[in-house]
Amino acid sequence: DNVYTISVIPGDGIGNEVVPQGLRVLDAVSALYGFKLNYRHYDWSCERYKATGKMMPDDGISQLRDSDAVFLGAVGFPGVPDHISLWNLLIPIRREFDQYVNLRPVRLLPGVPSPLANKQAHEIDFWIVRENTEGEYSQVGGRMFAGTEHEFVTQEAIFTRRGTDRILRYAFDLAVRLERNHVTSATKSNGIFHSMPFWDERYAVVAADYPQVRADQYHIDILAARFVMSPERFDVVVGSNLFGDILSDLGPGITGTIAVAPSANINPERKHPSMFEPVHGSAPDIAGQGIANPIGQIWSAAMMLDHLGQADAAACVMRAIEQTLAAPDRRVTKDLGGSASTAELGDDILSRI
Amino acid sequence: DNVYTISVIPGDGIGNEVVPQGLRVLDAVSALYGFKLNYRHYDWSCERYKATGKMMPDDGISQLRDSDAVFLGAVGFPGVPDHISLWNLLIPIRREFDQYVNLRPVRLLPGVPSPLANKQAHEIDFWIVRENTEGEYSQVGGRMFAGTEHEFVTQEAIFTRRGTDRILRYAFDLAVRLERNHVTSATKSNGIFHSMPFWDERYAVVAADYPQVRADQYHIDILAARFVMSPERFDVVVGSNLFGDILSDLGPGITGTIAVAPSANINPERKHPSMFEPVHGSAPDIAGQGIANPIGQIWSAAMMLDHLGQADAAACVMRAIEQTLAAPDRRVTKDLGGSASTAELGDDILSRI
Ligand SMILES: CC(C)[C@H](C(=O)O)[C@@H](O)C(=O)O
Ligand SMILES: CC(C)[C@H](C(=O)O)[C@@H](O)C(=O)O
Repeated sequence: DNVYTISVIPGDGIGNEVVPQGLRVLDAVSALYGFKLNYRHYDWSCERYKATGKMMPDDGISQLRDSDAVFLGAVGFPGVPDHISLWNLLIPIRREFDQYVNLRPVRLLPGVPSPLANKQAHEIDFWIVRENTEGEYSQVGGRMFAGTEHEFVTQEAIFTRRGTDRILRYAFDLAVRLERNHVTSATKSNGIFHSMPFWDERYAVVAADYPQVRADQYHIDILAARFVMSPERFDVVVGSNLFGDILSDLGPGITGTIAVAPSANINPERKHPSMFEPVHGSAPDIAGQGIANPIGQIWSAAMMLDHLGQADAAACVMRAIEQTLAAPDRRVTKDLGGSASTAELGDDILSRI
Repeated sequence: DNVYTISVIPGDGIGNEVVPQGLRVLDAVSALYGFKLNYRHYDWSCERYKATGKMMPDDGISQLRDSDAVFLGAVGFPGVPDHISLWNLLIPIRREFDQYVNLRPVRLLPGVPSPLANKQAHEIDFWIVRENTEGEYSQVGGRMFAGTEHEFVTQEAIFTRRGTDRILRYAFDLAVRLERNHVTSATKSNGIFHSMPFWDERYAVVAADYPQVRADQYHIDILAARFVMSPERFDVVVGSNLFGDILSDLGPGITGTIAVAPSANINPERKHPSMFEPVHGSAPDIAGQGIANPIGQIWSAAMMLDHLGQADAAACVMRAIEQTLAAPDRRVTKDLGGSASTAELGDDILSRI
């Protein structure tokens, strides 16, 4: 029971550099806390696509199916259009495994300079709950009159009651579990005609089941501005696939932690493996130089441990990350103002475990 | 030729409080610069909807058609769902008059505290060009299995080559006109399957016609984060209806100027009137108290004057706004840390014209 199978997909670019640091940390804490992680390594990536025409094998999803979690680096690289690489690897995993929750912490950590004025560590501390399987990310739609002046594309967003209710419910449950009792919904029902009024309708229905939770909502435009102007007011923010995506990069933006932020793609029913990956991408501009910040990947490892039921090990990793960031003698990567390599920052964190 | 007909629609909430200040300023500069503005006043609003069941009369659009510009306050008020109020007044005007450009300046003004650390006045200074007639704002779509568990809605976004190319071209022309020679496109072609890859395709085609302009692009999620982390790098940012909407509230967010920011809904061919309105909404929470900041409305008046060909008058209004904000003895509204009323801030600006 203390043995977990982890499917490891470093993917592209700096994914290959930060995932090994995540694995080192996982090995260290598993030894310390007495559990075992068996890794299965997969080379699924744009490189593989260029060589074989496929991002992953046809039975890729089945190969992952019986693992306890997927540990992913980043997907996407110049030369392969994003809508090919992503839609043949990352997005199918999220969908096939019904990982309908994308959970992302937004936290101002000690030692990470925020671009916002006058904000102290831990003053910004909330969670983004993003719908992760439907909504604006949809293959439904197409192109007409291609190549002519009259050309147009249609892009459908699909919001089901099932998909909408379950993500909203997850957000409310999380607010209760965290004893924060406050949920904020990202909407745009004044501009988006069908989907967002429906989203609001379901939000009202679900909120009614949680009378102890304060439920408010903002249009995505003003909500984005409020992330900058008054981020301390948020506890749990719930949004559609697209709105959640935007907010969960903006959140790390205001906390100065794009390279540090983790994310969990969760199947709450645990019928399928969940997937853990940093918020940052494959960063082609710095790939291959050994200077990428591994903290997003390592924090993702902590979220994975939490999900696997190893809460103490997860907390140990988080403590090591925070201690490293706060330490006067820390060795950090360029993005944090240091000159350490990816591996040296990994060493620093490891030394505190 | 020096006489212009302006259709004035204060709309809802604080629209009724800030529009009169805009008109006072317009009267003052028109007298000074020797042109005449004839106003036509319209009470189209949610109040009217509650009384008559219509936001505007059936022939509302025709009533506005022969005016030189529309000067609008804000639309939307509790009790009337936004997707009714907006889609029966603001959005029809944008569409019927083919105001396909929504132009919004993002500028860090002296005397307006920015939530960002270490930014000086004028260090942030760029333009957002938003597509304003198609894209994600669409009535196409609907609901199926309503009221059952299987309920779902579809929401279509429509991107035409005509609509996409003309907004992109406007952005490049603006970059050249301003001698900034740099355009940034907001995309999400890694997540949104049909529309955004098409947007990128057209961006590449249009950019090829402007070899002197540096053309870059970012996914909307990371772009939002970059607005916070490095706003000084932008010159002209072009986005779809939804992305432009989000960015043009986030822009005022980082410059601390939500209440101050203006917008122009432009029909560049001048076949139809253009419309000028502040970025802020009707603000039901402070409506009726006489404390709303009128600068967004007054700056919108300046954009209108510019559009009408009265560039000197426009510059005079902008000078008066900037002088007021920078003055040690300024009388400003609560949102800017003062205690002046809407009219007193109007007085202050007027006194500097
Ligand atoms: C009121 C709303 C429909 C509108 C929009 O989204 O276009 C507003 O946010 C704006 O930006 O002008
Ligand atoms: C790579 C891309 C498809 C992805 C998304 O938009 O979901 C990424 O931005 C993320 O947030 O995980």
